[in-house]
Amino acid sequence: MTTGKIAEEGLYLEDLFIGRKMMSETYLVSEEEIKNFAGKYDPQTFHLDDSLAKESLFGGLAASGWHTASITMRLLVGNGNLIKGGIVGMGGEISWPRPTRPGDTLQVESEVIEIIPSGARSDQGIVKLRSKTRNQNGKVVQLFIAKLYVPRKPV
Amino acid sequence: MTTGKIAEEGLYLEDLFIGRKMMSETYLVSEEEIKNFAGKYDPQTFHLDDSLAKESLFGGLAASGWHTASITMRLLVGNGNLIKGGIVGMGGEISWPRPTRPGDTLQVESEVIEIIPSGARSDQGIVKLRSKTRNQNGKVVQLFIAKLYVPRKPV
Repeated sequence: MTTGKIAEEGLYLEDLFIGRKMMSETYLVSEEEIKNFAGKYDPQTFHLDDSLAKESLFGGLAASGWHTASITMRLLVGNGNLIKGGIVGMGGEISWPRPTRPGDTLQVESEVIEIIPSGARSDQGIVKLRSKTRNQNGKVVQLFIAKLYVPRKPV
Repeated sequence: MTTGKIAEEGLYLEDLFIGRKMMSETYLVSEEEIKNFAGKYDPQTFHLDDSLAKESLFGGLAASGWHTASITMRLLVGNGNLIKGGIVGMGGEISWPRPTRPGDTLQVESEVIEIIPSGARSDQGIVKLRSKTRNQNGKVVQLFIAKLYVPRKPV
């Protein structure tokens, strides 16, 4: 994976607008990485064993959804400068319409869908960012609508 | 970490009822693991560098939220027999009220909050499971409301 494409100098709340889109670099997911991640965090047969995975509802080896989520985060972080001060999420809504497979190349397209000024703090706001993680065929493997803290530009 | 406490023979939809609770084993999160995970999937300074983390909004080294999510999955999977056929999620709502810290011991309490018969498939249903991941002080580090596919008992 290379990084940098989504990075600028670090965006402030004032730099964001509804509809602003950002595209990440790409990430090649190997079978070895799928099995390593699953061994540590999601040791179920359909993430670990090719032949047992074929008999499961996945119909073949599939990455853990949390692995797809973690790779998506890696792509969002890029070279570390997307959001000023870092990408800090309160949480969000996540779904996995289809699994990541060995050999897939993932890429994340993000779009600002809501900007909420903070009531309590004048130095930051909350941004809803919708990130679609797609495989090399353009099919969505993860949809994540995140709520992020984003700082305001210092006056 | 040890496993097994939450496991039974593998639950079917018919075994679940609203309010059914399940408690996981525990998982000790080391500083080394926090930095390793972050290095791979969330390489931001507050997950990697103690002194820079002190100056960040976390006020000290904090695990990536995706790391907390992955450990939660590991605890849910237990010895692999919570749900018959495995834990397969469509997605859900996730939030991180506070970060996981080095040395924290995490444990997950899950509760069935909704059971939805599948319209399309008579052999399975969808269960909403609310999982609270707590640290050793009982404070919630993650709340995840998951939608899981759960098979019906074969007739």
